[in-house]
Amino acid sequence: MIRVTFLGTAAARPTPGRNVSGLAVQREGDLMLFDCGEGTQRQMMRFATGFAVSSVFITHVHADHFLGLTGLLRTMGLQGRTDPLSIYGPARAGRILERAVHLGLERVPFEVTIREVDPGDRVDFDGWRVEAFEVTHGIRAVGFALREDDRLGRFDVELARRLGVPEGPAFGRLHRGETVEAADGRPVTADEVVGPPRPGRIVAYTGDTRPSPAVVDAVSGADLLIHDATFLHEDAERARETGHSTAAEAAEIAREAGVGRLVLTHLSARYAEVPHLLEAEARAIFPASTAAHDGLVIEIPLRGDEP
Amino acid sequence: MIRVTFLGTAAARPTPGRNVSGLAVQREGDLMLFDCGEGTQRQMMRFATGFAVSSVFITHVHADHFLGLTGLLRTMGLQGRTDPLSIYGPARAGRILERAVHLGLERVPFEVTIREVDPGDRVDFDGWRVEAFEVTHGIRAVGFALREDDRLGRFDVELARRLGVPEGPAFGRLHRGETVEAADGRPVTADEVVGPPRPGRIVAYTGDTRPSPAVVDAVSGADLLIHDATFLHEDAERARETGHSTAAEAAEIAREAGVGRLVLTHLSARYAEVPHLLEAEARAIFPASTAAHDGLVIEIPLRGDEP
Repeated sequence: MIRVTFLGTAAARPTPGRNVSGLAVQREGDLMLFDCGEGTQRQMMRFATGFAVSSVFITHVHADHFLGLTGLLRTMGLQGRTDPLSIYGPARAGRILERAVHLGLERVPFEVTIREVDPGDRVDFDGWRVEAFEVTHGIRAVGFALREDDRLGRFDVELARRLGVPEGPAFGRLHRGETVEAADGRPVTADEVVGPPRPGRIVAYTGDTRPSPAVVDAVSGADLLIHDATFLHEDAERARETGHSTAAEAAEIAREAGVGRLVLTHLSARYAEVPHLLEAEARAIFPASTAAHDGLVIEIPLRGDEP
Repeated sequence: MIRVTFLGTAAARPTPGRNVSGLAVQREGDLMLFDCGEGTQRQMMRFATGFAVSSVFITHVHADHFLGLTGLLRTMGLQGRTDPLSIYGPARAGRILERAVHLGLERVPFEVTIREVDPGDRVDFDGWRVEAFEVTHGIRAVGFALREDDRLGRFDVELARRLGVPEGPAFGRLHRGETVEAADGRPVTADEVVGPPRPGRIVAYTGDTRPSPAVVDAVSGADLLIHDATFLHEDAERARETGHSTAAEAAEIAREAGVGRLVLTHLSARYAEVPHLLEAEARAIFPASTAAHDGLVIEIPLRGDEP
């Protein structure tokens, strides 16, 4: 299961009901943060994500996207953490992230690595990766897409038995693409009993951005797109000026990119109490749209496991 | 009215129900913060203190006492603030506070002055002052006491009339200590109709500290003492090691200093849900003790206005 928890969904500054940007993504045993605004650690407590974060991906170094790092690292230290932590941010963000990590008197008692990434760079994990992609926000910023490797195709156990493949290691070899010998000596090839590779899941998060063709390319086919939707269409001019998107623009991107589901986030304080207005605007263009709220959890099942 | 709002009452790191240190003090038109941990700005929204803060007093630069400055100043900027802001902290804290103020890409669009204060230093306002006092916490730290000037004594209007003092400016002159002439030409002196000066109010906040004679001196006679009470007596050893106080120690200080009321704050996460244990321990020594919770408001009426 991939589980996405929205820790903060407000733009620029918090409101009584919404914290600034933060997103926790759990994939099997791995927990990552995408952006970490002030107060993120407390949201992690409130929404019970746990603190076993291995990597933090910061889209850009506007205050509402990274100020929570300092306190989070102090708390991890108080918790006795010894595991290293990796922080990724866009080009030229390293110095500011370094300052945030080391602000104050306390030492961080575990290893922290900060790495700058450019659009197209990927961070590889076991069976999945996070790719940085180009966004447009006035300052250096990147979006991030979590992409799983494709899984092996569906293995037809019944058919393999009928073809006389002996149960045991031969099943695994066949599933991985090898040809094996049936009980009658006949060779059985993988394409006889294994379906096409099942695509891995994709979760894409833009951070702050104007809508752009680069975003459409990067998030194409994502199961879940989490897109800047700071404003309503009536504030389109302001969205343009400030390097943000409207709900309608986010929905257009979702439609063009053929994603499975769109979540609108980074909502301006003016809509903090009326997110349904943003949601309605997006749904008119892309029906599978949801306006985020703090504490929203979205789970993404494996693909291609339908019977 | 002096109104004290507890914005954060947890020690070191937040809990789901308690934020890290922060205290808003409103005195007539002036709003001040004492400490400003991560997330303080959101607590100010939640507890409706407003953002018209003129001065921030930081007791020491452990992360849980100042990290909220950066976001608070960004939000003030977004709100269009142009008024200057003064930040006070202990010796050698200036450089770290400076870094917190300027962390990140955004410029702060109003003037920020940072001043280091030593125990005994005072910051003067119109009719009141804030004095730094010595505390003991392992690193450079100060407590702060808000002290009002004494007010003029009670003016006995009825008596002044009976003595034949003409109503009008002569009342004011008499109240301020001048001798005036009654209708019959007889001099009337202030001590005939004006009571003794009425003492100003005192609110004292220790920040993090061990109990000490210096604290007793500094907070002597305070209407309200807000004291570090991180631990219960059963953890007295740990309090000593970490430079904090137990609830019992805070209560002893309150009793020795003859304060009006004690509020216990900076509660360890282990007592976050059982603050009544700390309260009971303190009350056995000093009955007018309360364990703080986030959102607690204490109002301090003028002194000497009892009929």
